[in-house]
Amino acid sequence: MTRTRDDDRRERLSAATWTVLARDGVSGLTLRAVAAEAGCTTGLVLHAFADKRALLLHARELLHSRGTSHADALDDGTRGPADVLRLFLLRSVDAGPGEDDGTDRNEDARVWLGFLAASLSDPVLAERHRQGNHAFLGRCAALIGRALPELGERECEERALALSATVEGLNTLSTADPDRYDRRVRRSAVDGAIRTALAPRP
Amino acid sequence: MTRTRDDDRRERLSAATWTVLARDGVSGLTLRAVAAEAGCTTGLVLHAFADKRALLLHARELLHSRGTSHADALDDGTRGPADVLRLFLLRSVDAGPGEDDGTDRNEDARVWLGFLAASLSDPVLAERHRQGNHAFLGRCAALIGRALPELGERECEERALALSATVEGLNTLSTADPDRYDRRVRRSAVDGAIRTALAPRP
Repeated sequence: MTRTRDDDRRERLSAATWTVLARDGVSGLTLRAVAAEAGCTTGLVLHAFADKRALLLHARELLHSRGTSHADALDDGTRGPADVLRLFLLRSVDAGPGEDDGTDRNEDARVWLGFLAASLSDPVLAERHRQGNHAFLGRCAALIGRALPELGERECEERALALSATVEGLNTLSTADPDRYDRRVRRSAVDGAIRTALAPRP
Repeated sequence: MTRTRDDDRRERLSAATWTVLARDGVSGLTLRAVAAEAGCTTGLVLHAFADKRALLLHARELLHSRGTSHADALDDGTRGPADVLRLFLLRSVDAGPGEDDGTDRNEDARVWLGFLAASLSDPVLAERHRQGNHAFLGRCAALIGRALPELGERECEERALALSATVEGLNTLSTADPDRYDRRVRRSAVDGAIRTALAPRP
Protein backbone atom coordinates (compact mmCIF):
# COMPACT_ATOMS: atom_id res chain seq x y z
CA MET A 1 0.00 0.00 0.00
CA THR A 2 1.40 3.35 -0.98
CA ARG A 3 1.72 5.84 1.75
CA THR A 4 -0.15 9.04 0.90
CA ARG A 5 0.09 12.61 2.09
CA ASP A 6 -3.25 11.99 3.79
CA ASP A 7 -1.68 9.18 5.84
CA ASP A 8 1.14 11.44 6.93
CA ARG A 9 -1.26 14.19 7.85
CA ARG A 10 -3.51 11.87 9.81
CA GLU A 11 -0.53 10.53 11.69
CA ARG A 12 0.66 14.03 12.56
CA LEU A 13 -2.83 14.95 13.75
CA SER A 14 -3.02 11.74 15.71
CA ALA A 15 0.20 12.54 17.55
CA ALA A 16 -0.97 16.09 18.19
CA THR A 17 -4.30 14.91 19.62
CA TRP A 18 -2.47 12.58 21.94
CA THR A 19 -0.07 15.29 23.14
CA VAL A 20 -2.79 17.87 23.78
CA LEU A 21 -5.06 15.44 25.61
CA ALA A 22 -2.24 14.11 27.80
CA ARG A 23 -0.96 17.60 28.57
CA ASP A 24 -4.09 19.71 28.91
CA GLY A 25 -6.81 17.23 29.75
CA VAL A 26 -10.19 16.99 28.13
CA SER A 27 -11.11 20.64 28.64
CA GLY A 28 -7.96 21.69 26.78
CA LEU A 29 -8.66 19.37 23.83
CA THR A 30 -10.05 21.57 21.07
CA LEU A 31 -9.74 21.38 17.29
CA ARG A 32 -7.81 24.63 17.55
CA ALA A 33 -5.31 23.31 20.09
CA VAL A 34 -4.71 20.21 17.98
CA ALA A 35 -4.16 22.38 14.91
CA ALA A 36 -1.66 24.54 16.82
CA GLU A 37 0.18 21.46 18.07
CA ALA A 38 0.30 19.91 14.59
CA GLY A 39 1.25 23.20 12.96
CA CYS A 40 -1.70 23.28 10.56
CA THR A 41 -5.03 25.03 10.18
CA THR A 42 -8.17 24.17 12.12
CA GLY A 43 -9.74 23.42 8.73
CA LEU A 44 -7.26 20.62 8.14
CA VAL A 45 -8.06 19.06 11.51
CA LEU A 46 -11.76 19.27 10.68
CA HIS A 47 -11.08 17.47 7.44
CA ALA A 48 -9.80 14.43 9.36
CA PHE A 49 -11.89 14.63 12.55
CA ALA A 50 -15.44 15.97 12.53
CA ASP A 51 -15.45 17.15 16.12
CA LYS A 52 -13.98 16.80 19.59
CA ARG A 53 -15.71 13.47 20.07
CA ALA A 54 -13.91 12.12 16.99
CA LEU A 55 -10.58 13.23 18.47
CA LEU A 56 -11.39 11.49 21.74
CA LEU A 57 -12.50 8.30 20.02
CA HIS A 58 -9.33 8.32 18.00
CA ALA A 59 -7.16 8.62 21.13
CA ARG A 60 -9.11 5.81 22.78
CA GLU A 61 -8.67 3.68 19.69
CA LEU A 62 -4.91 4.15 19.82
CA LEU A 63 -4.81 3.10 23.46
CA HIS A 64 -6.92 0.06 22.73
CA SER A 65 -5.06 -1.14 19.65
CA ARG A 66 -1.66 -0.77 21.26
CA GLY A 67 -2.80 -2.72 24.32
CA THR A 68 -4.32 -5.44 22.15
CA SER A 69 -1.25 -5.89 19.96
CA HIS A 70 0.96 -6.08 22.99
CA ALA A 71 -1.23 -8.66 24.66
CA ASP A 72 -1.46 -10.78 21.50
CA ALA A 73 2.31 -10.70 21.16
CA LEU A 74 2.73 -11.85 24.77
CA ASP A 75 0.28 -14.70 24.35
CA ASP A 76 2.21 -16.39 21.56
CA GLY A 77 2.43 -19.84 23.09
CA THR A 78 5.85 -19.39 24.67
CA ARG A 79 4.50 -18.47 28.11
CA GLY A 80 1.99 -19.90 30.54
CA PRO A 81 -1.24 -18.00 31.21
CA ALA A 82 -0.05 -16.67 34.60
CA ASP A 83 3.04 -15.11 33.01
CA VAL A 84 1.03 -13.63 30.18
CA LEU A 85 -1.44 -12.15 32.65
CA ARG A 86 1.30 -10.64 34.76
CA LEU A 87 3.19 -9.07 31.86
CA PHE A 88 -0.03 -7.80 30.33
CA LEU A 89 -1.16 -6.10 33.52
CA LEU A 90 2.27 -4.67 34.32
CA ARG A 91 2.27 -3.13 30.87
CA SER A 92 -1.21 -1.76 31.54
CA VAL A 93 0.14 0.21 34.49
CA ASP A 94 3.41 1.08 32.73
CA ALA A 95 5.45 -0.97 35.15
CA GLY A 96 6.76 -3.86 33.15
CA PRO A 97 10.18 -5.38 33.71
CA GLY A 98 12.91 -3.45 31.99
CA GLU A 99 10.85 -0.25 31.96
CA ASP A 100 12.67 1.30 34.90
CA ASP A 101 14.32 4.04 32.92
CA GLY A 102 13.89 6.56 35.72
CA THR A 103 11.06 8.43 34.08
CA ASP A 104 7.40 7.95 34.73
CA ARG A 105 5.60 8.13 31.42
CA ASN A 106 2.05 8.37 32.54
CA GLU A 107 0.79 9.83 29.28
CA ASP A 108 -1.38 6.82 28.55
CA ALA A 109 -3.03 7.14 31.94
CA ARG A 110 -3.69 10.83 31.40
CA VAL A 111 -5.24 10.21 27.99
CA TRP A 112 -7.34 7.45 29.46
CA LEU A 113 -8.58 9.60 32.33
CA GLY A 114 -9.43 12.46 29.98
CA PHE A 115 -11.44 10.11 27.81
CA LEU A 116 -13.30 8.66 30.75
CA ALA A 117 -14.14 12.08 32.17
CA ALA A 118 -15.54 13.13 28.80
CA SER A 119 -17.62 9.97 28.67
CA LEU A 120 -19.52 11.10 31.79
CA SER A 121 -21.63 13.33 29.58
CA ASP A 122 -21.35 11.51 26.24
CA PRO A 123 -23.10 8.15 25.76
CA VAL A 124 -21.12 7.36 22.60
CA LEU A 125 -17.81 7.71 24.44
CA ALA A 126 -19.19 5.77 27.39
CA GLU A 127 -20.20 2.92 25.09
CA ARG A 128 -16.73 2.84 23.53
CA HIS A 129 -15.22 2.74 26.99
CA ARG A 130 -17.39 -0.18 28.01
CA GLN A 131 -16.49 -2.15 24.88
CA GLY A 132 -12.80 -1.66 25.57
CA ASN A 133 -13.10 -2.56 29.21
CA HIS A 134 -15.15 -5.67 28.41
CA ALA A 135 -12.44 -6.79 26.02
CA PHE A 136 -9.90 -6.25 28.80
CA LEU A 137 -12.07 -8.20 31.26
CA GLY A 138 -12.60 -11.01 28.75
CA ARG A 139 -8.89 -11.37 28.18
CA CYS A 140 -8.09 -11.43 31.89
CA ALA A 141 -10.91 -13.87 32.65
CA ALA A 142 -9.71 -16.23 29.89
CA LEU A 143 -6.15 -16.17 31.23
CA ILE A 144 -7.36 -16.84 34.77
CA GLY A 145 -9.48 -19.71 33.46
CA ARG A 146 -6.49 -21.23 31.66
CA ALA A 147 -4.37 -20.94 34.81
CA LEU A 148 -7.08 -22.34 37.07
CA PRO A 149 -9.34 -24.59 35.02
CA GLU A 150 -11.25 -25.66 38.12
CA LEU A 151 -12.84 -22.21 38.42
CA GLY A 152 -16.17 -21.59 36.78
CA GLU A 153 -16.65 -18.88 34.18
CA ARG A 154 -18.40 -16.61 36.62
CA GLU A 155 -15.65 -16.86 39.20
CA CYS A 156 -13.06 -16.02 36.53
CA GLU A 157 -15.09 -12.96 35.56
CA GLU A 158 -15.38 -11.81 39.16
CA ARG A 159 -11.64 -12.11 39.62
CA ALA A 160 -11.07 -10.24 36.37
CA LEU A 161 -13.26 -7.38 37.60
CA ALA A 162 -11.09 -7.00 40.70
CA LEU A 163 -7.93 -6.94 38.55
CA SER A 164 -9.45 -4.35 36.29
CA ALA A 165 -10.26 -2.14 39.29
CA THR A 166 -6.69 -2.37 40.55
CA VAL A 167 -5.22 -1.43 37.18
CA GLU A 168 -7.69 1.39 36.72
CA GLY A 169 -7.11 2.78 40.19
CA LEU A 170 -3.33 2.71 39.89
CA ASN A 171 -3.45 4.50 36.56
CA THR A 172 -5.92 7.09 37.71
CA LEU A 173 -4.14 7.85 40.97
CA SER A 174 -0.73 8.03 39.32
CA THR A 175 -1.85 10.81 36.99
CA ALA A 176 -2.18 13.24 39.89
CA ASP A 177 0.42 11.74 42.19
CA PRO A 178 3.20 10.06 40.22
CA ASP A 179 5.58 10.23 43.20
CA ARG A 180 3.38 8.34 45.60
CA TYR A 181 2.04 5.89 43.01
CA ASP A 182 5.38 5.34 41.37
CA ARG A 183 6.33 2.40 39.22
CA ARG A 184 7.48 0.31 42.17
CA VAL A 185 4.18 0.81 43.98
CA ARG A 186 2.21 0.02 40.85
CA ARG A 187 4.19 -3.12 40.22
CA SER A 188 3.81 -4.31 43.78
CA ALA A 189 0.05 -3.63 43.78
CA VAL A 190 -0.40 -5.52 40.51
CA ASP A 191 1.57 -8.47 41.84
CA GLY A 192 -0.58 -8.52 44.98
CA ALA A 193 -3.78 -8.41 42.95
CA ILE A 194 -2.56 -11.22 40.70
CA ARG A 195 -1.74 -13.41 43.69
CA THR A 196 -5.35 -12.97 44.83
CA ALA A 197 -6.74 -13.54 41.32
CA LEU A 198 -4.73 -16.73 40.88
CA ALA A 199 -5.19 -18.13 44.37
CA PRO A 200 -6.77 -21.58 44.44
CA ARG A 201 -10.42 -21.47 45.37
CA PRO A 202 -10.67 -21.34 49.19
CA MET B 1 -24.78 30.92 65.22
CA THR B 2 -27.55 32.59 63.33
CA ARG B 3 -28.23 31.32 59.90
CA THR B 4 -27.96 34.12 57.35
CA ARG B 5 -29.27 34.58 53.82
CA ASP B 6 -25.67 34.20 52.69
CA ASP B 7 -25.57 30.72 54.24
CA ASP B 8 -28.75 29.71 52.45
CA ARG B 9 -27.44 31.04 49.17
CA ARG B 10 -24.13 29.28 49.53
CA GLU B 11 -25.86 26.05 50.30
CA ARG B 12 -28.07 26.35 47.23
CA LEU B 13 -25.03 27.10 45.08
CA SER B 14 -23.19 24.20 46.63
CA ALA B 15 -25.99 21.80 45.74
CA ALA B 16 -26.16 23.23 42.22
CA THR B 17 -22.38 22.81 41.72
CA TRP B 18 -22.64 19.21 42.79
CA THR B 19 -25.55 18.46 40.49
CA VAL B 20 -23.96 20.08 37.43
CA LEU B 21 -20.59 18.41 37.96
CA ALA B 22 -22.13 14.97 38.51
CA ARG B 23 -24.46 15.34 35.53
CA ASP B 24 -22.37 17.14 32.92
CA GLY B 25 -18.79 16.44 33.91
CA VAL B 26 -16.03 18.97 34.25
CA SER B 27 -16.47 20.43 30.78
CA GLY B 28 -20.11 21.22 31.58
CA LEU B 29 -19.25 22.90 34.87
CA THR B 30 -19.47 26.64 34.21
CA LEU B 31 -20.50 29.55 36.43
CA ARG B 32 -23.43 29.98 34.06
CA ALA B 33 -24.60 26.36 34.33
CA VAL B 34 -24.42 26.56 38.13
CA ALA B 35 -26.42 29.80 38.08
CA ALA B 36 -29.07 28.19 35.86
CA GLU B 37 -29.26 25.14 38.14
CA ALA B 38 -29.53 27.31 41.27
CA GLY B 39 -32.01 29.68 39.63
CA CYS B 40 -29.92 32.79 40.17
CA THR B 41 -27.69 35.14 38.20
CA THR B 42 -24.11 34.36 37.20
CA GLY B 43 -23.16 37.43 39.25
CA LEU B 44 -24.45 35.80 42.41
CA VAL B 45 -22.38 32.66 41.73
CA LEU B 46 -19.33 34.83 41.18
CA HIS B 47 -19.98 36.51 44.53
CA ALA B 48 -19.53 33.14 46.29
CA PHE B 49 -17.04 31.39 43.97
CA ALA B 50 -14.36 33.34 42.11
CA ASP B 51 -14.03 30.89 39.23
CA LYS B 52 -14.44 27.34 38.04
CA ARG B 53 -11.52 26.18 40.13
CA ALA B 54 -13.29 27.46 43.25
CA LEU B 55 -16.36 25.44 42.30
CA LEU B 56 -14.27 22.33 41.84
CA LEU B 57 -12.43 22.82 45.12
CA HIS B 58 -15.74 23.29 46.87
CA ALA B 59 -17.10 20.02 45.44
CA ARG B 60 -13.91 18.20 46.46
CA GLU B 61 -14.17 19.67 49.94
CA LEU B 62 -17.69 18.36 50.32
CA LEU B 63 -16.57 14.86 49.30
CA HIS B 64 -13.69 14.98 51.71
CA SER B 65 -15.56 16.30 54.71
CA ARG B 66 -18.40 13.83 54.32
CA GLY B 67 -15.96 10.94 54.08
CA THR B 68 -14.04 12.15 57.10
CA SER B 69 -17.11 12.60 59.30
CA HIS B 70 -18.36 9.17 58.35
CA ALA B 71 -15.02 7.54 59.13
CA ASP B 72 -14.72 9.34 62.47
CA ALA B 73 -18.21 8.22 63.41
CA LEU B 74 -17.36 4.60 62.56
CA ASP B 75 -14.18 4.67 64.58
CA ASP B 76 -15.89 5.53 67.87
CA GLY B 77 -14.42 2.73 69.96
CA THR B 78 -17.31 0.31 69.50
CA ARG B 79 -15.69 -1.61 66.61
CA GLY B 80 -12.37 -3.26 65.99
CA PRO B 81 -10.05 -1.79 63.34
CA ALA B 82 -10.87 -4.45 60.73
CA ASP B 83 -14.59 -3.68 60.95
CA VAL B 84 -13.97 0.06 60.80
CA LEU B 85 -11.77 -0.40 57.73
CA ARG B 86 -14.35 -2.54 55.97
CA LEU B 87 -17.28 -0.23 56.62
CA PHE B 88 -15.20 2.79 55.70
CA LEU B 89 -14.14 1.31 52.35
CA LEU B 90 -17.58 -0.04 51.51
CA ARG B 91 -18.94 3.45 52.08
CA SER B 92 -16.18 4.81 49.82
CA VAL B 93 -17.50 2.71 46.95
CA ASP B 94 -21.14 3.28 47.88
CA ALA B 95 -21.66 -0.37 48.75
CA GLY B 96 -22.15 -0.43 52.47
CA PRO B 97 -24.52 -2.86 54.15
CA GLY B 98 -28.11 -1.64 54.07
CA GLU B 99 -27.46 0.50 51.00
CA ASP B 100 -29.04 -1.96 48.60
CA ASP B 101 -32.00 0.19 47.78
CA GLY B 102 -31.99 -0.87 44.14
CA THR B 103 -30.49 2.36 42.84
CA ASP B 104 -26.87 3.00 42.07
CA ARG B 105 -26.09 6.47 43.25
CA ASN B 106 -22.73 7.02 41.70
CA GLU B 107 -22.89 10.80 41.94
CA ASP B 108 -19.95 10.94 44.31
CA ALA B 109 -17.83 8.92 41.90
CA ARG B 110 -18.77 11.18 39.00
CA VAL B 111 -17.91 14.31 40.96
CA TRP B 112 -14.64 12.73 42.00
CA LEU B 113 -13.71 11.76 38.45
CA GLY B 114 -14.56 15.22 37.15
CA PHE B 115 -12.34 16.79 39.78
CA LEU B 116 -9.47 14.45 39.00
CA ALA B 117 -9.71 15.05 35.26
CA ALA B 118 -9.59 18.80 35.87
CA SER B 119 -6.54 18.37 38.07
CA LEU B 120 -4.58 17.00 35.09
CA SER B 121 -4.02 20.58 33.96
CA ASP B 122 -4.33 22.45 37.27
CA PRO B 123 -1.60 22.07 39.89
CA VAL B 124 -3.77 23.60 42.64
CA LEU B 125 -6.45 20.97 42.13
CA ALA B 126 -3.82 18.25 41.86
CA GLU B 127 -2.34 19.31 45.20
CA ARG B 128 -5.77 19.25 46.85
CA HIS B 129 -6.31 15.78 45.43
CA ARG B 130 -3.01 14.54 46.83
CA GLN B 131 -3.78 15.94 50.30
CA GLY B 132 -7.13 14.17 50.32
CA ASN B 133 -5.70 10.90 49.07
CA HIS B 134 -2.86 11.03 51.61
CA ALA B 135 -5.39 11.50 54.40
CA PHE B 136 -7.26 8.46 53.05
CA LEU B 137 -4.04 6.44 52.90
CA GLY B 138 -3.06 7.53 56.41
CA ARG B 139 -6.38 6.44 57.81
CA CYS B 140 -6.23 3.04 56.08
CA ALA B 141 -2.61 2.47 57.09
CA ALA B 142 -3.40 3.30 60.73
CA LEU B 143 -6.33 0.86 60.77
CA ILE B 144 -4.20 -1.88 59.19
CA GLY B 145 -1.50 -1.22 61.79
CA ARG B 146 -4.01 -1.50 64.63
CA ALA B 147 -5.34 -4.79 63.20
CA LEU B 148 -1.85 -6.22 62.57
CA PRO B 149 0.57 -4.60 65.01
CA GLU B 150 3.38 -6.89 63.83
CA LEU B 151 3.57 -5.07 60.49
CA GLY B 152 5.96 -2.19 60.13
CA GLU B 153 4.78 1.27 59.17
CA ARG B 154 6.00 0.88 55.62
CA GLU B 155 4.21 -2.38 55.06
CA CYS B 156 0.98 -0.81 56.34
CA GLU B 157 1.43 2.04 53.89
CA GLU B 158 2.04 -0.32 50.98
CA ARG B 159 -1.10 -2.24 51.80
CA ALA B 160 -3.05 1.00 52.11
CA LEU B 161 -1.87 2.02 48.62
CA ALA B 162 -3.29 -1.18 47.15
CA LEU B 163 -6.62 -0.60 48.93
CA SER B 164 -6.74 2.94 47.65
CA ALA B 165 -6.19 1.72 44.09
CA THR B 166 -9.04 -0.77 44.39
CA VAL B 167 -11.46 1.84 45.72
CA GLU B 168 -10.40 4.34 43.09
CA GLY B 169 -10.69 1.86 40.26
CA LEU B 170 -14.13 0.64 41.29
CA ASN B 171 -15.44 4.17 41.55
CA THR B 172 -13.95 5.26 38.26
CA LEU B 173 -15.12 2.23 36.33
CA SER B 174 -18.61 2.37 37.80
CA THR B 175 -19.19 5.89 36.49
CA ALA B 176 -19.17 4.66 32.89
CA ASP B 177 -20.43 1.13 33.50
CA PRO B 178 -22.72 0.99 36.52
CA ASP B 179 -24.26 -2.29 35.35
CA ARG B 180 -21.03 -4.23 35.14
CA TYR B 181 -19.47 -2.63 38.23
CA ASP B 182 -22.64 -2.78 40.26
CA ARG B 183 -22.83 -2.61 44.02
CA ARG B 184 -22.44 -6.36 44.45
CA VAL B 185 -19.25 -6.39 42.36
CA ARG B 186 -17.87 -3.39 44.23
CA ARG B 187 -18.62 -4.96 47.57
CA SER B 188 -17.02 -8.24 46.61
CA ALA B 189 -13.89 -6.54 45.22
CA VAL B 190 -13.50 -4.46 48.39
CA ASP B 191 -13.86 -7.57 50.55
CA GLY B 192 -11.22 -9.34 48.49
CA ALA B 193 -8.83 -6.41 48.75
CA ILE B 194 -9.35 -6.22 52.51
CA ARG B 195 -8.60 -9.91 52.92
CA THR B 196 -5.29 -9.28 51.17
CA ALA B 197 -4.59 -6.13 53.17
CA LEU B 198 -5.28 -7.86 56.48
CA ALA B 199 -3.55 -11.15 55.69
CA PRO B 200 -0.81 -12.06 58.16
CA ARG B 201 2.63 -11.41 56.77
CA PRO B 202 3.62 -14.38 54.57
